[in-house]
Amino acid sequence: MTTVHDLPIPTSPTDLPPVERRPAIPAGFAAGGLAAGIKASGRPDLAVVTSTVGPAAAAAVFTPNTFAAAPVRLSRDHLAATSGDPRGAFGWADAIISTSGSANAATGAAGDDDQVAIAALLADAVGTVVTRTLHLSTGIIGTRLPLDKVSAGLARLVPELRSTDSGLAAAAEALRTTDSVVKVATTTIDLPDADGRAVSVRVSGIAKGVGMIHPRMATMLSVVLTDVAAAPQTLWGLLRPAAARTWDQLSVDGDTSTNDTVFVLASGASGAALVEAASPAAATLGAAIEAVARDLVRQQAADGEGASTLITAAVTGARDDAEARAVARSVISSSLVKAAAHGRDPNWGRIAGAAGNAKLADAAVLEAAGLSRDEATVRAGTAAELDPALVRISIAGHLVFDGAQGGPVAFDRAAACEAMNAPEVVLGLDLGLGAGSGEAFGCDLTEEYVIENSEYTT
Amino acid sequence: MTTVHDLPIPTSPTDLPPVERRPAIPAGFAAGGLAAGIKASGRPDLAVVTSTVGPAAAAAVFTPNTFAAAPVRLSRDHLAATSGDPRGAFGWADAIISTSGSANAATGAAGDDDQVAIAALLADAVGTVVTRTLHLSTGIIGTRLPLDKVSAGLARLVPELRSTDSGLAAAAEALRTTDSVVKVATTTIDLPDADGRAVSVRVSGIAKGVGMIHPRMATMLSVVLTDVAAAPQTLWGLLRPAAARTWDQLSVDGDTSTNDTVFVLASGASGAALVEAASPAAATLGAAIEAVARDLVRQQAADGEGASTLITAAVTGARDDAEARAVARSVISSSLVKAAAHGRDPNWGRIAGAAGNAKLADAAVLEAAGLSRDEATVRAGTAAELDPALVRISIAGHLVFDGAQGGPVAFDRAAACEAMNAPEVVLGLDLGLGAGSGEAFGCDLTEEYVIENSEYTT
Repeated sequence: MTTVHDLPIPTSPTDLPPVERRPAIPAGFAAGGLAAGIKASGRPDLAVVTSTVGPAAAAAVFTPNTFAAAPVRLSRDHLAATSGDPRGAFGWADAIISTSGSANAATGAAGDDDQVAIAALLADAVGTVVTRTLHLSTGIIGTRLPLDKVSAGLARLVPELRSTDSGLAAAAEALRTTDSVVKVATTTIDLPDADGRAVSVRVSGIAKGVGMIHPRMATMLSVVLTDVAAAPQTLWGLLRPAAARTWDQLSVDGDTSTNDTVFVLASGASGAALVEAASPAAATLGAAIEAVARDLVRQQAADGEGASTLITAAVTGARDDAEARAVARSVISSSLVKAAAHGRDPNWGRIAGAAGNAKLADAAVLEAAGLSRDEATVRAGTAAELDPALVRISIAGHLVFDGAQGGPVAFDRAAACEAMNAPEVVLGLDLGLGAGSGEAFGCDLTEEYVIENSEYTT
Repeated sequence: MTTVHDLPIPTSPTDLPPVERRPAIPAGFAAGGLAAGIKASGRPDLAVVTSTVGPAAAAAVFTPNTFAAAPVRLSRDHLAATSGDPRGAFGWADAIISTSGSANAATGAAGDDDQVAIAALLADAVGTVVTRTLHLSTGIIGTRLPLDKVSAGLARLVPELRSTDSGLAAAAEALRTTDSVVKVATTTIDLPDADGRAVSVRVSGIAKGVGMIHPRMATMLSVVLTDVAAAPQTLWGLLRPAAARTWDQLSVDGDTSTNDTVFVLASGASGAALVEAASPAAATLGAAIEAVARDLVRQQAADGEGASTLITAAVTGARDDAEARAVARSVISSSLVKAAAHGRDPNWGRIAGAAGNAKLADAAVLEAAGLSRDEATVRAGTAAELDPALVRISIAGHLVFDGAQGGPVAFDRAAACEAMNAPEVVLGLDLGLGAGSGEAFGCDLTEEYVIENSEYTT
């Protein structure tokens, strides 16, 4: 990542492969979606993705919310059952189901029973065992899923699943709640086959986002599919650090939901050789997963409820990456920074204030990002190191604060305001302390956000 | 504190003395305020409080923001100089100055020089040494204080300082920035004199609040005066745990400022005997300080920028008080809970979601609240223990969720909406795990907040 002095700051780290925003289904999967009647609006609300070539390796990251919803808990149980991993972080799966309109969260034992019944329906429909089904749900907390509608919808949908891009597009469409647009991203990498010849491998993601999203993920569902072959644990070893740099750095409104889930499924249908952990192929695959994750996160942030602009905080010069990410996350989470972005106000004081309040993530995220367990425990929640006399801040390409020059810098205010009137505003901070860098993604705070969330029960 | 089943939840813990909202100056102090011209509006912006009976014992809690403003850093230095306490948490003081309109934050070495110059002016005007001056400032970040105006204002103000309630009221008035009302609170307790006879002792506070306030304090200035006699360290030993239960549990918008400060000054002019640490008198004095603190915090939350209602989260049944406070703070900090409160929507799902995301405070706050340093380090930032099957939630007196009954409870929605249409909405949570309890104070999120903060550079 470049520093604040190399303006304008590029919006894509150069070590990630390029991403396209189109639905592109990898080999070995079928997908589809339709309106099952869960949503009163009659919009698509049921999606299914299946592996067509036998069980896919699966890895997952779930919400840390203690009120985790029934689909989250059941998916963890199923992954644990197929792999023996006690956390339920990875395993094997034949099918994913997503219901939209009811979160099946805080619904007690009855809600758990509903999700178990859905697992049986899905397993029966696609011809697998219940433990190889994975579950997503999003919508209102505390309402029961209409089992009859889900059952009838599944009976219609499963025969219609297609191994086509349009099938994946239909699944992405059915993930949506209040999303204003469908969220898809895809990239292609070359990996060697058993004879060392290059084989094209696809990594594609679909996602839903909007309100109630915060570091460590929330009301955020993402599914990443790839036709690579990899063991579940290898896949998880690539997903978790990528998530620490992407989904854990996403905040729409500081709230985390009960339902957040990312699934990565690998079918092995590409013909590329099995990707071994810590191999060059694993590094290539990890970068592809992160590229897709980062682009989905940017789409999720940009489509925050009521949002009119994507806010990217790009931090360089931190003591290490964990501190850079903490500062970036604190900046894009600040209500005052978000409101200033909405007003196209180059208010660097609020950015400085938010940076000065940055706290490192919790131990699980720090460990996922590469810190040892001991170091993660000690540093979790501690303040990020910052010396105001060394900090530089830029807003939309304009240097506005330079600690080494005594602080505030004369800048062209009208030009900065004009530059902020854009679909993306990049806030750059160079801490001047070390080589650590990181990003975070959020959106502006608008009157529409308040109106939407004070008048609509979600 | 009562549980959610003893509804309505009382809004004052029964072990705190009653508080009145009026300016009532304790013996041994003089105060005043006027318009020095720092604010373009011409409103009062300069306040001074002095001890009239020799140096007062002083204790302080400051913002943890790394971008701490010049007045914060100078006050810490002065307290350290008069007591030898390396943190600058307590010491001796003859005068406090508050400037409003410019925060003198992120102003570099020039801003530090300005504050040192103000200390010299103040010391000279009141006839003390610079190290016995304390400093508060609030307003726009990154702008310099107009020294000439502060100097001329001090020359006019110091001769006018009065040992009267109206003098304290004038100081409270001059603390304000965008506060819609003056914030004052006072209580009276009986403490023994040297002969064991009861003497009336006063504890009075003045404060400013509104935007950019969050747990661990922010853009929040409070001064508490008492005529009791106590050593600085004793006073700090009472202030810090009281602050952990009050100011650290206050959030208006999740942002912390560079300037937050609480000062407690004790003149010793009441005639009561010196309050020894860990004595019955110390417990009585601590409760009085906490009562004043709690009432000021409630006034600060209720007057949050754009706010139309005070939101109080009252948590019982936690494993311990630290976890109860973590859950309470998470609930009142949630943008979705805040927006629902604005819409008078009894949306318990958002409360459950926010509770499920509760993280314990950082180590400094946990230690201040009574945990050992080792325990505070280990537990800082960890998730608060919660079992959805045991949780009960009430909104404005209506039980809406009972985990033991399977979750959602049938309730009179229209009556609950009506009950939420009030100056204060109490959100009650009983975790069903233990005897821990705690509160937190916030406000609703309104369109006015967004408008105010996207159109006004603060």
